[in-house]
Amino acid sequence: MLPTVDSPLGSLVREELETNGVQVIAQATVTSIDEREGRLAVVADPDLIVDADTVLVVVGVRPDAKLGQEAGVETGEKGALQVNRRMETNLPGVYAAGDCVVTYHRLLDADSYLPLGTTAHKQGRVAGENAVGGERTFEGSLGTQVVKVFELAVARTGLRDEEAAAAGFEALTVESSGFDHKVHYPEAQTISMRLTGERRSGRLLGVQLLGRLGSEVPKRIDIAATALHHGMTVDALNDLDLSYTPPFGSPWDAVQAGAQAWSAAVAP
Amino acid sequence: MLPTVDSPLGSLVREELETNGVQVIAQATVTSIDEREGRLAVVADPDLIVDADTVLVVVGVRPDAKLGQEAGVETGEKGALQVNRRMETNLPGVYAAGDCVVTYHRLLDADSYLPLGTTAHKQGRVAGENAVGGERTFEGSLGTQVVKVFELAVARTGLRDEEAAAAGFEALTVESSGFDHKVHYPEAQTISMRLTGERRSGRLLGVQLLGRLGSEVPKRIDIAATALHHGMTVDALNDLDLSYTPPFGSPWDAVQAGAQAWSAAVAP
Repeated sequence: MLPTVDSPLGSLVREELETNGVQVIAQATVTSIDEREGRLAVVADPDLIVDADTVLVVVGVRPDAKLGQEAGVETGEKGALQVNRRMETNLPGVYAAGDCVVTYHRLLDADSYLPLGTTAHKQGRVAGENAVGGERTFEGSLGTQVVKVFELAVARTGLRDEEAAAAGFEALTVESSGFDHKVHYPEAQTISMRLTGERRSGRLLGVQLLGRLGSEVPKRIDIAATALHHGMTVDALNDLDLSYTPPFGSPWDAVQAGAQAWSAAVAP
Repeated sequence: MLPTVDSPLGSLVREELETNGVQVIAQATVTSIDEREGRLAVVADPDLIVDADTVLVVVGVRPDAKLGQEAGVETGEKGALQVNRRMETNLPGVYAAGDCVVTYHRLLDADSYLPLGTTAHKQGRVAGENAVGGERTFEGSLGTQVVKVFELAVARTGLRDEEAAAAGFEALTVESSGFDHKVHYPEAQTISMRLTGERRSGRLLGVQLLGRLGSEVPKRIDIAATALHHGMTVDALNDLDLSYTPPFGSPWDAVQAGAQAWSAAVAP
């Protein structure tokens, strides 16, 4: 479930779905969707038929680059329009931004295809500023994402182990868990965390977080994203002067506790 | 109320207290606390007597530096023990950390007296690492704080207008408000924000936030703290790849919207 995070967190997502009455069927290939007596039958391989009133088909995202291509704009990653960090295409005076363009990835220092709403807004602003004579550079995506799954928030930023390895980093991912606030204050909740760093340099490469609503996972991932933006090491996260009061946090925030777990695991 | 934030936010804190049945009496000087028939009478000037079962007296914090002083440790700000950024005192091999020492302020680039739990933990770790032969420097406090007041979270990091001015910055503070998440998704809540920046350089100097529980004010202030740690400009906050999904945020996070309000106010 949710392949944008590592499978241990995906398993927790699956549990949350099943707890809420969702039947999860994975590893099945849908071969047809038939109308039968006013209802829909989803036929899948291996041998499976599921009755439904409504079927939502979610099969990923592809750039719609036709308009630009027909105008002579070059394409790159996944067929998306090729732009530079000023959001310029190869055609003078023609800018492009959003789900139809390649996105500069700050950690990979390369283009990728990462269509996200936040990225589109940032690229649009860069394109707009430059189009009217400004000077602005797109500072890049970190692939920061968050989703709500019933009562869970699941978030990630940066690279996961395989992504980091594919990009040539000697990466290590360490899983840990901590409380969203001091456990002596009521309603402390567990946050599950997977932190990826580069073994030799100790550089932070990515963070994945999962916690229940109210555990401030969405904005905790943003602390990590801000740290990644600046190329911090995992250890340097401990130097950040983050807020603390028992109802809301700990003297070492959950993100810093995860950093300490990583450092302990990488120590010789 | 709550003089650690600017008075417009302090007024919101006062409202929250009064909504919850707290009688707020400011500008009164307590002259005595007398016992009368088993209860306590707080006598104040101008003319006021308040009956009470229990009186909590909160009059600020002073360093308890006696042990160190008697051993010959030099003192600094507010009489706290003087340490360098390795947490060394003037006595060879003697380290000190916590509420009894001066604290290096990262933005002021000077010592201050800022006794906070998070700071004490960080200083203790630096002292400990160095005491056993390590090499670690205290990276400084930003004065990040958060408090819970009934259903409110009130947070700050960095410098406020007067503090920035006193330190020689030509500062401007702009108040704005935004929603914690997209308003089309249920239960969006308003976050009040005051952002301080340096007019000429555009450098971020401080952020104050106030919002109801669940609006992720505590971890939003930490985004600002992480940005301050790295000396970001207000405008550069817009480049951060923060998480977004309608139940948890907006394509431009509330902190970024506040940055845009500041930039609009400072524009010529």
